Amino acid sequence: MTKNEKIKKLVPEPSIRRMPAYLAYAEGLLRKKQMYVSSTQIASYMSIDSTQVTKDLSYTSIVGKTRVGYEVSALVKVLSEFLGFTVMDDAFLVGAGSLGSALLHDSGLNNFGLKIVAAFDVNHKTIGKKINDVEVFHIDQFRDLAQDMNVQMGILTVPAENSQTVADLMVAWGIKAIWNFTPARIKVPDDIIVQNTTLYSNLALLFNKLHNEE
Amino acid sequence: MTKNEKIKKLVPEPSIRRMPAYLAYAEGLLRKKQMYVSSTQIASYMSIDSTQVTKDLSYTSIVGKTRVGYEVSALVKVLSEFLGFTVMDDAFLVGAGSLGSALLHDSGLNNFGLKIVAAFDVNHKTIGKKINDVEVFHIDQFRDLAQDMNVQMGILTVPAENSQTVADLMVAWGIKAIWNFTPARIKVPDDIIVQNTTLYSNLALLFNKLHNEE
Repeated sequence: MTKNEKIKKLVPEPSIRRMPAYLAYAEGLLRKKQMYVSSTQIASYMSIDSTQVTKDLSYTSIVGKTRVGYEVSALVKVLSEFLGFTVMDDAFLVGAGSLGSALLHDSGLNNFGLKIVAAFDVNHKTIGKKINDVEVFHIDQFRDLAQDMNVQMGILTVPAENSQTVADLMVAWGIKAIWNFTPARIKVPDDIIVQNTTLYSNLALLFNKLHNEE
Repeated sequence: MTKNEKIKKLVPEPSIRRMPAYLAYAEGLLRKKQMYVSSTQIASYMSIDSTQVTKDLSYTSIVGKTRVGYEVSALVKVLSEFLGFTVMDDAFLVGAGSLGSALLHDSGLNNFGLKIVAAFDVNHKTIGKKINDVEVFHIDQFRDLAQDMNVQMGILTVPAENSQTVADLMVAWGIKAIWNFTPARIKVPDDIIVQNTTLYSNLALLFNKLHNEE
């Protein structure tokens, strides 16, 4: 591990969560041919304090210039690289049902460094089909294909009740990072990375606010 | 606003975020025909403290019984209702590109109380088509259809650079709650609800951990 990577590890989660918004903003400015952007401008766009912006950006290698701020094109480049969007990671997706096939349809993930190279299921109606050009295999083929293709990332879109079993299989088959879209919590060894993304939690938050305002 | 709704409003966001996982766990137990579940069991499943579980569940109307805990079937019912998953909310989706069409393919959202009743775009190649049985209209038809169908919720899946303009239109056309899937931040009047769900932020978090471990 290099020194730079050690430093990266200490970046707080909320900072990383804000960075794709900084990136989207900078990309917009780039299209408008704006050359420089100040932390105050970014802060105003984000509705946060400008000291937070400078702190977040200090985790990357970008350096602002006095009075003019950050160079927009450099900001786009540095943030994309920092967030891992410029290197393509291959992933296997397990569970080609409605949520899984939804993700397979999101070609936009390619622009953010994620390529789903194969999908897996146990449903014989789905196996052998292609969803948005990604082939669906029987789950039994996961092990061999993961080794052949050296895939380290697994996307979990199975029904919640199967999530732990499939996560255990993924780990046994060499997966190092699991992106869990099920509402269930999964238990994995300490060295395995899990990122939970529960669309339905966000939906619940939205409903909670909407229904209480009515 | 009833007293119950006033109380609901004070529920902390982290508690609401955990509840879909409690629900998934309880649904699993229900399938296994387990009658009761203790807060300790739920806590162990979630890898959190059991006092947190009892506190979270105290925001709902469920009452545990001494020694046996919560009745599983009641827990499923109470949590589904509390989270707004039992009442169907209609939504319009704007931006039927790859992310938008991905969401349209997730029929699972129906089980969580969300029905996308129409999609909108400006791309003539998409307009008039159906994606997973949902018709894509020209954005100009949003206003009239929203009024006719009394739709209050808008899903934003346009390119980041168009997000503010489309959000402004949604608000002008009577939308009360916006589920924003773009990485951009949008500014709306105080009485409009916004829920940001940035898949790419979660992806960035995952990459950050995975690439630093390599």
